[in-house]
Amino acid sequence: MKLTILGCYSATPRTLGNTTSQVLEIANHMFLIDCGEGTQVQLRKHKIKFNRIKHIFISHLHGDHFFGLVGLISTFRLLTREADLHIYGPKGIKEVVTLQMKLADSWTNYRLYFHELSSTTSELIFEDDKIQVHTIPLEHRVYTNGYLFKEKEGDRKLDIDAVEEANIDMAYYRKLKQGFDIENEDGVLIDNETVTFPAEKPKSYAFCSDTVYKTDIVPIIKDVDVLYHESTFLEAHAHLAPKTKHSTAKEAAKIAKQANAGTLILGHYSSRYPNLEVFKDEAQTVFKNVKLAQDGKVFSFH
Amino acid sequence: MKLTILGCYSATPRTLGNTTSQVLEIANHMFLIDCGEGTQVQLRKHKIKFNRIKHIFISHLHGDHFFGLVGLISTFRLLTREADLHIYGPKGIKEVVTLQMKLADSWTNYRLYFHELSSTTSELIFEDDKIQVHTIPLEHRVYTNGYLFKEKEGDRKLDIDAVEEANIDMAYYRKLKQGFDIENEDGVLIDNETVTFPAEKPKSYAFCSDTVYKTDIVPIIKDVDVLYHESTFLEAHAHLAPKTKHSTAKEAAKIAKQANAGTLILGHYSSRYPNLEVFKDEAQTVFKNVKLAQDGKVFSFH
Repeated sequence: MKLTILGCYSATPRTLGNTTSQVLEIANHMFLIDCGEGTQVQLRKHKIKFNRIKHIFISHLHGDHFFGLVGLISTFRLLTREADLHIYGPKGIKEVVTLQMKLADSWTNYRLYFHELSSTTSELIFEDDKIQVHTIPLEHRVYTNGYLFKEKEGDRKLDIDAVEEANIDMAYYRKLKQGFDIENEDGVLIDNETVTFPAEKPKSYAFCSDTVYKTDIVPIIKDVDVLYHESTFLEAHAHLAPKTKHSTAKEAAKIAKQANAGTLILGHYSSRYPNLEVFKDEAQTVFKNVKLAQDGKVFSFH
Repeated sequence: MKLTILGCYSATPRTLGNTTSQVLEIANHMFLIDCGEGTQVQLRKHKIKFNRIKHIFISHLHGDHFFGLVGLISTFRLLTREADLHIYGPKGIKEVVTLQMKLADSWTNYRLYFHELSSTTSELIFEDDKIQVHTIPLEHRVYTNGYLFKEKEGDRKLDIDAVEEANIDMAYYRKLKQGFDIENEDGVLIDNETVTFPAEKPKSYAFCSDTVYKTDIVPIIKDVDVLYHESTFLEAHAHLAPKTKHSTAKEAAKIAKQANAGTLILGHYSSRYPNLEVFKDEAQTVFKNVKLAQDGKVFSFH
């Protein structure tokens, strides 16, 4: 699981700070999460292949999280993309994208699927054999969702030497991977654990931006490996958080602690703070394993 | 008159090439012309004061000319702008901007005026005591206008030493600037030209992007000081120009020549060409005074 931060600042793009967008590589997917203005240039800068992006998840329709979307869709068209593109986001996202395509008389030559969200409880919005994606209903000034990406339990790995030694027919390898005990060619029941290695532990990632401090999300993201939680403010401006429906670094850490997260990544910093290290310091008074998002930073989790 | 190129490439923004946007300083105005994605960051990079921009002219609703508009409007709001903002552009521009403000529940706290255009003949769209702005109807795949910025004849300048020598009452200075002969305090009629200098020659600038080669515009831009004309293609791809309703460098030069322009600035290059100098070479086979737009380049005209 690999996370590339394309932008992690709040409000407005600046010369040295992009608004929210990130790419999550997980279970053979390359998911784009949020798409602030300039995201397509950030994708180029970080050499992320446009064609590998098949799913885009938009948290909410504030500009710093989606003003780059229509440009990216348009660029995909100009680069003669053929692969389908799925867009998940709040109700209204389809209208605003299609209106711009209509005005430009520029329709995509690839298939564009909009999955508009309006539920206020967590729902399963994408699933394949390796992963599930659920919404995380957040509380912000407009309708907002975070997203939980959760790998499924994978197959056990064969211990090939042991399997051959145990004289098991190849036809049973699939069953072995699924964890079954198998009778070998001599009619002896072979204990699965003696011929296989455990599956890799499934990874999970929760993206939570933008939101006021909201403990309702804790059960949804319980035991998540990596939690990205917005931290717009430091303690000095904690009074602004409920007013603007944002969180402080310390509040993000409280959520991480309650959810028993493995790692907390902070981001969505207000541009009023020149020194990001203070976000980490304040969060670590509550939760130890804190990392700071920064534009261009890549986090790998094994 | 000063022109700052914020972006001059066609189609899609890239790491080292922005889409169309430029700032024209003329007659105490700072006009923003087109607004591709990332324009607000380019404005910051070139230290152009956001508050000085009060008029934005959008040529057409293709993304590379206007996907940065809604972000800029939104950033003005976040920076608590108070000054009115006037936006000129094709019909539809109001709907697409206001829809995004509605979805974000983020209305501007300054006044936003949309001047939607639909005429296919040149019209006067802005005027004050120093300048007129006319549309230049272009021919592209969607409804498109260029813009002609034309300073008015200014006042003559007083030759203060001569005026005092001639013993003219201060009450007549304004009349002098306007070119009138004036009776001095001794009752002698003073020839205006002996106590004033000529007004500065009024400057004019024509922005023509995007368009197929279209000689209809020549009478509108006749004798313009500076003509920016798109040149998407070189001769090698001249066959693509009419098909995509763009122009070649040579065609841009033909327009400049017929219009008797002072200077031709080329731009809106297709990203397929690594060497821009060829645009200049090809244009100069037709018209001599050619300059190449490049991101960040500033042209001053005195």
